[in-house]
Amino acid sequence: MDELREKVFRANLDLVKHGLVIFTWGNVSSIDRRRGLVAIKPSGVSYESLKPEDIVVIDLEGNIVEGRLKPSSDTPTHLVLYKAFAGIGGVVHTHSVYATAWAQAGRDIPCIGTTHADYFSDDIPCTRSMTQQEIEGAYEEETGHVIAERFKGLNPEYIPGVLVANHGPFAWGKDATGAVHNAVVMEQVARMAYLACGINPSLSMNPHLITKHFYRKHGANAYYGNS
Amino acid sequence: MDELREKVFRANLDLVKHGLVIFTWGNVSSIDRRRGLVAIKPSGVSYESLKPEDIVVIDLEGNIVEGRLKPSSDTPTHLVLYKAFAGIGGVVHTHSVYATAWAQAGRDIPCIGTTHADYFSDDIPCTRSMTQQEIEGAYEEETGHVIAERFKGLNPEYIPGVLVANHGPFAWGKDATGAVHNAVVMEQVARMAYLACGINPSLSMNPHLITKHFYRKHGANAYYGNS
Amino acid sequence: MDELREKVFRANLDLVKHGLVIFTWGNVSSIDRRRGLVAIKPSGVSYESLKPEDIVVIDLEGNIVEGRLKPSSDTPTHLVLYKAFAGIGGVVHTHSVYATAWAQAGRDIPCIGTTHADYFSDDIPCTRSMTQQEIEGAYEEETGHVIAERFKGLNPEYIPGVLVANHGPFAWGKDATGAVHNAVVMEQVARMAYLACGINPSLSMNPHLITKHFYRKHGANAYYGNS
Amino acid sequence: MDELREKVFRANLDLVKHGLVIFTWGNVSSIDRRRGLVAIKPSGVSYESLKPEDIVVIDLEGNIVEGRLKPSSDTPTHLVLYKAFAGIGGVVHTHSVYATAWAQAGRDIPCIGTTHADYFSDDIPCTRSMTQQEIEGAYEEETGHVIAERFKGLNPEYIPGVLVANHGPFAWGKDATGAVHNAVVMEQVARMAYLACGINPSLSMNPHLITKHFYRKHGANAYYGNS
Repeated sequence: MDELREKVFRANLDLVKHGLVIFTWGNVSSIDRRRGLVAIKPSGVSYESLKPEDIVVIDLEGNIVEGRLKPSSDTPTHLVLYKAFAGIGGVVHTHSVYATAWAQAGRDIPCIGTTHADYFSDDIPCTRSMTQQEIEGAYEEETGHVIAERFKGLNPEYIPGVLVANHGPFAWGKDATGAVHNAVVMEQVARMAYLACGINPSLSMNPHLITKHFYRKHGANAYYGNS
Repeated sequence: MDELREKVFRANLDLVKHGLVIFTWGNVSSIDRRRGLVAIKPSGVSYESLKPEDIVVIDLEGNIVEGRLKPSSDTPTHLVLYKAFAGIGGVVHTHSVYATAWAQAGRDIPCIGTTHADYFSDDIPCTRSMTQQEIEGAYEEETGHVIAERFKGLNPEYIPGVLVANHGPFAWGKDATGAVHNAVVMEQVARMAYLACGINPSLSMNPHLITKHFYRKHGANAYYGNS
Repeated sequence: MDELREKVFRANLDLVKHGLVIFTWGNVSSIDRRRGLVAIKPSGVSYESLKPEDIVVIDLEGNIVEGRLKPSSDTPTHLVLYKAFAGIGGVVHTHSVYATAWAQAGRDIPCIGTTHADYFSDDIPCTRSMTQQEIEGAYEEETGHVIAERFKGLNPEYIPGVLVANHGPFAWGKDATGAVHNAVVMEQVARMAYLACGINPSLSMNPHLITKHFYRKHGANAYYGNS
Repeated sequence: MDELREKVFRANLDLVKHGLVIFTWGNVSSIDRRRGLVAIKPSGVSYESLKPEDIVVIDLEGNIVEGRLKPSSDTPTHLVLYKAFAGIGGVVHTHSVYATAWAQAGRDIPCIGTTHADYFSDDIPCTRSMTQQEIEGAYEEETGHVIAERFKGLNPEYIPGVLVANHGPFAWGKDATGAVHNAVVMEQVARMAYLACGINPSLSMNPHLITKHFYRKHGANAYYGNS
């Protein structure tokens, strides 16, 4: 598991490099599907002092398998996502500014540009508001369930991110690096959509352009190598 | 008092590091409750040239106990806050951009996200406008009184910051470092709230979520270690 | 062609330096008109690892003349622009934030300031939405045709940039460096226009001032050396 | 004049350090009132390659006294300001983003906060639109006259800056350093006012607070040392 921990360690530091987190406001995990083990950032450790050996390894029930520290408080959310979305290998949670603003506004990020359509095949959905019971119960686990509920009928591999209402973004990918990449894209498209809606509140997107941009990068006939 | 001065010195430099101040537009102080002494940034000294020995030590009446320089012009405001809020150990004043914009707009920063609720149990209040008499009198001291008046019925340890109308933010904490931390959070949530209100002017917050996020980090049953 | 490749290499790195691109979201090309050859960024290579020898040289039909890598997926758009606009020597495509927001909003960037008029003699036009047929056909080439169509009656040397609707900006210039310079200017004026329209939605520009600022820098009687 | 040139050189570089200019979009000058000589940035020289000996020294009629380069194209504006405002010793022109946006919007920057009132005793005025005749005549000199006209009845030492409509900001001060300082403040208050007006379009300022903040830093009874 040393390699997975090292990758998760580096992916966590990339959140800082890309300006998605301050203090300890974020966490990255990654799963080894064969062994059923997840490596995740420890709780309450600042990025300045984080070391590869601080990364905690747990099983899918949340039991610690390796590591001296407590796993991130958001661990139950990560675990629900790994169980609900069989095709993903890494999960990221941040409070990045523009994506969080859309989450606080309770609005899906509309797909109004090719930058968005290059990575997300549709709007980036925002969950419903959580109930009092969910919040006062196993809150972090319920957060995962509310995300999974929102993805009924959606393909999480084609829409690799979500906004939790009044909270912030989660993003995922094939592995930790891919999840961080999608989190960076999500923040960027959240910013562009904020600005574009300010310029033209009644804007709309060409649906053929969405399809084209998404499928020239994804699926069997992809030919686009990111520029 | 050398240790307190050193801490106040470092906390002042952290304002620059976190992008909360330009020129000399900010100051941090901290109190030693046992001795009744306060260490505070000197007036008119730029952050580039500030040294630990420049930090001024005063008593609660504002008399200089240690230091060759004049204490910050905002010193009387800090002293009123230390007297009014018995549980605080550090105070910060800045003109950070987004928090100042809310202060200039004369509006409380609404609690519309968990980033906010992780640190502040309710809206961040804005004071009333000061009267001509208060302004032309002991202005900096009166600024402190207007803040204290705004906190009638509020818990300053659960809402560790305020906006002074048409002026800017003050934040506080257990010590100088905690106060700076809360000042950074306040600027960040001010920015997120600005953006979220732009996206959805009629947004609202889930009250159960506020309670949950605040109390999983504060009080007797806290279990959340900042991620 | 080594010199042209070196210049195109440096111009691509300048996109990163000026904050116009993240990941691989951009590309610069330049043409040697005498030989009819174009040097362009390879597809899918990150800016961190890009080397001068990675730059691909192609003819105007898109055949590779030098280089081991695949040219940028946007190459057909570049080639249409070189054929349509005889006076240009370099082309840049980015997803820079403010210009992309205007493109997503489907709006021309209005000429409302001298910063704009110093470089663009009129509004920066936005193309029409592309048809399903164009998108599902030779998409990247059709993108070039839609730009050329938008410039019927406009002088591309006096308006060195365009917004492709729902997509993003293309800019051009005498050579690769000039094209990057104009891309930076376009992002800056896109930002200023966004802010100015927010302050005063009914603003207007003095037409004499546009003419003055443009012609004191361009054409036979230019006397202005950029400050 | 070597000392003045050195100071003007350093003040020009400070524009870059404070993020007020890109490329060659700005210039600083300073006057030696006793000798009637002005040192100013040369035209069209980039900040990266600028050297102290490039600074041009001219008399108040614009004749070159020292230096091998052509003075900034904006020189006639600077000279009109030095003649119209006897108390100023340095002038800065930039296209800084937020101040330029207000100029493009054709609006005075309203005095709605103490950050503004600490440096400017009232709104920062925007000139009227220039006439066709002024623009097609001695344009840069007429720009100076339009500024001077706007200051009829205003004290340029108490309002050390202006917006030229559809163009951008000019700021001034006791010397080159002071002028740059005021240009930085102007950009900051332009940004804060933009944000505050977005939060509360009907905001207003406490007039007593303006008076208090301005006069605790300026005039005979000043006691405030910038924090």
